[in-house]
Amino acid sequence: MNENISAALNRAVALFGDREAMVDGATRWDYRELDARVRAFDAALDGFGLAPGDVVGVLAANSKAHLVGWLAVPRSGRVLNELNTRLSLAELEFILDDSAVRVLVVDENYLDTGRELLRSSPDLDTLIYAGSGECPSDCISFEVLTTTGESPRQVSVDGDATAGIFYTGGTTGRPKGVMLTHNNLMANAKHALICLGYTDRDTYLHAGPMFHLADGASTVALTWVGGKHVIVPGFDPEGWLATVSAERVTRAMLVPTMINMLLAKPFPAGTDTSSLVSILYGASPMPQSVLQTAMDTLGCDWCQVYGMTEGAPIISFMTYDDHRRGVSGDDPEASARLRSAGRPVVGVEVEVRGADDTVLGAGEAGEIVVRGSNIMKGYLNRPEETSAVLTEDGWYRTGDMGYLDAGGYLFVVDRLKDMIISGGENVYCTEVENALYRHSDVLEVAVFGLPDPQWGEAVHAAVRLRPTSRTSADELRMHARELIAGYKVPRAVHILDDALPKSGAGKILKRNLREQFARVDA
Amino acid sequence: MNENISAALNRAVALFGDREAMVDGATRWDYRELDARVRAFDAALDGFGLAPGDVVGVLAANSKAHLVGWLAVPRSGRVLNELNTRLSLAELEFILDDSAVRVLVVDENYLDTGRELLRSSPDLDTLIYAGSGECPSDCISFEVLTTTGESPRQVSVDGDATAGIFYTGGTTGRPKGVMLTHNNLMANAKHALICLGYTDRDTYLHAGPMFHLADGASTVALTWVGGKHVIVPGFDPEGWLATVSAERVTRAMLVPTMINMLLAKPFPAGTDTSSLVSILYGASPMPQSVLQTAMDTLGCDWCQVYGMTEGAPIISFMTYDDHRRGVSGDDPEASARLRSAGRPVVGVEVEVRGADDTVLGAGEAGEIVVRGSNIMKGYLNRPEETSAVLTEDGWYRTGDMGYLDAGGYLFVVDRLKDMIISGGENVYCTEVENALYRHSDVLEVAVFGLPDPQWGEAVHAAVRLRPTSRTSADELRMHARELIAGYKVPRAVHILDDALPKSGAGKILKRNLREQFARVDA
Repeated sequence: MNENISAALNRAVALFGDREAMVDGATRWDYRELDARVRAFDAALDGFGLAPGDVVGVLAANSKAHLVGWLAVPRSGRVLNELNTRLSLAELEFILDDSAVRVLVVDENYLDTGRELLRSSPDLDTLIYAGSGECPSDCISFEVLTTTGESPRQVSVDGDATAGIFYTGGTTGRPKGVMLTHNNLMANAKHALICLGYTDRDTYLHAGPMFHLADGASTVALTWVGGKHVIVPGFDPEGWLATVSAERVTRAMLVPTMINMLLAKPFPAGTDTSSLVSILYGASPMPQSVLQTAMDTLGCDWCQVYGMTEGAPIISFMTYDDHRRGVSGDDPEASARLRSAGRPVVGVEVEVRGADDTVLGAGEAGEIVVRGSNIMKGYLNRPEETSAVLTEDGWYRTGDMGYLDAGGYLFVVDRLKDMIISGGENVYCTEVENALYRHSDVLEVAVFGLPDPQWGEAVHAAVRLRPTSRTSADELRMHARELIAGYKVPRAVHILDDALPKSGAGKILKRNLREQFARVDA
Repeated sequence: MNENISAALNRAVALFGDREAMVDGATRWDYRELDARVRAFDAALDGFGLAPGDVVGVLAANSKAHLVGWLAVPRSGRVLNELNTRLSLAELEFILDDSAVRVLVVDENYLDTGRELLRSSPDLDTLIYAGSGECPSDCISFEVLTTTGESPRQVSVDGDATAGIFYTGGTTGRPKGVMLTHNNLMANAKHALICLGYTDRDTYLHAGPMFHLADGASTVALTWVGGKHVIVPGFDPEGWLATVSAERVTRAMLVPTMINMLLAKPFPAGTDTSSLVSILYGASPMPQSVLQTAMDTLGCDWCQVYGMTEGAPIISFMTYDDHRRGVSGDDPEASARLRSAGRPVVGVEVEVRGADDTVLGAGEAGEIVVRGSNIMKGYLNRPEETSAVLTEDGWYRTGDMGYLDAGGYLFVVDRLKDMIISGGENVYCTEVENALYRHSDVLEVAVFGLPDPQWGEAVHAAVRLRPTSRTSADELRMHARELIAGYKVPRAVHILDDALPKSGAGKILKRNLREQFARVDA
């Protein structure tokens, strides 16, 4: 089997060449124009001497540069590295080094970061500027590269070649590069089309970060059917509603935090969301009452995805119908299932396994393991961590705990990985703990999540300082901010006078801390 | 990439175990029962000593045995050979020998044929009886095998292992076994789901032959989403309408010949087709007037597939929307496109190439070449014929001539292969010519197709006999009937007094014959 991500755009331009493919501010491209830009950029990468397997990074707010990156970089065998813009410089340096990024695309927001990375990263030798205004003299213009390159004859790329590397926080404290192949990304796009039902009549709004696979899944799938991409730099409630109204958007992806922000205020006069067909959300289930309000207010169908970077990302899906039945309240079981992660999508197998690797029955909690053509090839440069999670017969151990009910709905109950999901982002506790431990006054630390009405979960830390220390909670937070992304920094640092609670074996009991501070918060 | 056909049933039984999976006459199985039967049959094949790669044939009218065969035989790596029931004994003998069938499933209609094959085929050692009534003493009971087998732990099967062999008439006069892998069949099922939109709420009527991939595509796809299979032994208009009414059928597949038969008479009292959502047809486009009548009479959506055994089978697709716009008559271009084969489905690339292998532009006719995860592994035991049609970079040369219009709609204009499509079946002229040449009085023969209102095309033969011969056209047809399937036997044998018309190079000019006899017929 030998899929190539370029098949998506090739189909769209052949079938819908004259149709609008992309809207980004004042820029509107039809599919012919998008295709020409993508081919030119592909050729430009040849010009930089990048061979198949070489890595191109993108560090930018949402823009057409991401769409071109997704479609152009893997086209001839090169590898896309979509960087999380919220990461700290130290984290970005690690990632650029780990994946040997040769060329980095930046915009005006990340130009300075790009320059620092150019100095510090040995493999990086070229900055491409895709921002607004004049191209700085130390960069090469994205606009020029995408309009003047020669169009090369497309080379044959093995379907199992890596198309993209997507970094995810690591349980060991270092980010891990998830290698997704052409086959992985195209399998996931097919699965997305089967559950979402996109067609060439759809207009999709990229408001969530385009560096995330939650959005990336729709980038490939929508291109394949020839739909229209509408891109805004990022999410804000008023801008989102104005764009939906102006562009007659039919499909969108949001995380629950964004949905809460949307529903917090009455819609401005002139808002017209009648074009919306469906909104996809992920990262966590939503309470029935919020869903009810969302459905009433936005008047469209809702669906939920449970996924992970290693799954490219879709694993399971709560359908439109699941939501309608759950919210109606007529069927208590259907309502209870609104708290589930839905059912395995066509193309992905899901099992729940016990400690001895036996497959458990309905209602029995164990580790969620998954299999499908969408499952990653492995972690870059981490053979041991790869073999720890990928079995010989193709199963991936997610590290999430859960159970399947009698109807095959998956309930995620806990994470084997010590991880928090805050505002749709995964935060690995070990990463945060490592950052805090690097402060010389910190004697002991434990990071854990507490329920939060806006973010789903919020990052909390319990710290015991050295006896003489006068370091404040705020100082510790500022210290962490230097080392890790803002969304990973604890919202609250709780300084304890005593040792942290521990098990007989000396392991910190995070459960006890969660209970203690949940009560304090309430 | 490593798909396994068993993932479809595994998902259905986990999610919809209690739902009705199959109706065949008085037999109703839920997914749990179907799964138990499939596992038992799989285990029974172990009991016969069949290893991965060994071949199981099915020669039977539509019944639950086909559904079990599709799902059970490839499950542990064995190979399904669905036999065309219309083939002659000589053809079946060739196929059983070519593919080394070890076990053959028959019903009461093909029991005698099975017994003859058991005598003549060296590899065949077991007949399984899946017909009605008592199991004959020289057979093993399908009913017993599917209820008493032990359920084995499923073995791991490579996605590129052959799951099924499907014989197609050969241009060289010998049938060719198309090897379809697990990956091929599962890719096609995903493509089918993307274009057809089946869900677990669907009920599909198997009325076209289940040995055909035109039906087989829905067998796998519908199981994967957990829909219901309704099986009737074969197609007849009254039975079809009665079953649609009684079982509230939502989806069906028909060939144009069947549609003509359905529309020929008023529907019986009590017919209720209101449950129908869509009808898929294939093999050839339908005239706008017939489609209009079909839509008015059956009141559902219509879609058309262009495909071939080598493509597992779907290549391109005329959507519901294409049909609605085409039939409305508001848009002459949309109406003209009703004569097309639709547009390439997501997952399949289509190019039209000139004689020098260059890719041709819109409107230019050349050979249709296709690529995708659905394309066959090759022809069994035919490395040369395989390499003649499969290129190194994964393209398959269909042998069909056509062009793509500016909107990417594919028009099939002629066949490079000398082939007739009659009532949905491919008839290779060489096969028919070879059969006629085996009659000692035949000096010269040419087989060609003429348009036919009921069958799409009808098989015609022009024959020149030895000077002294008195053999009649009917004698020649009976002679052919001994050697080839009934649907391949010429509807008319035209005995000529003169030599057949030839080109300067001595090649018979079939075009001239088609013109001559089309006038005679009109």
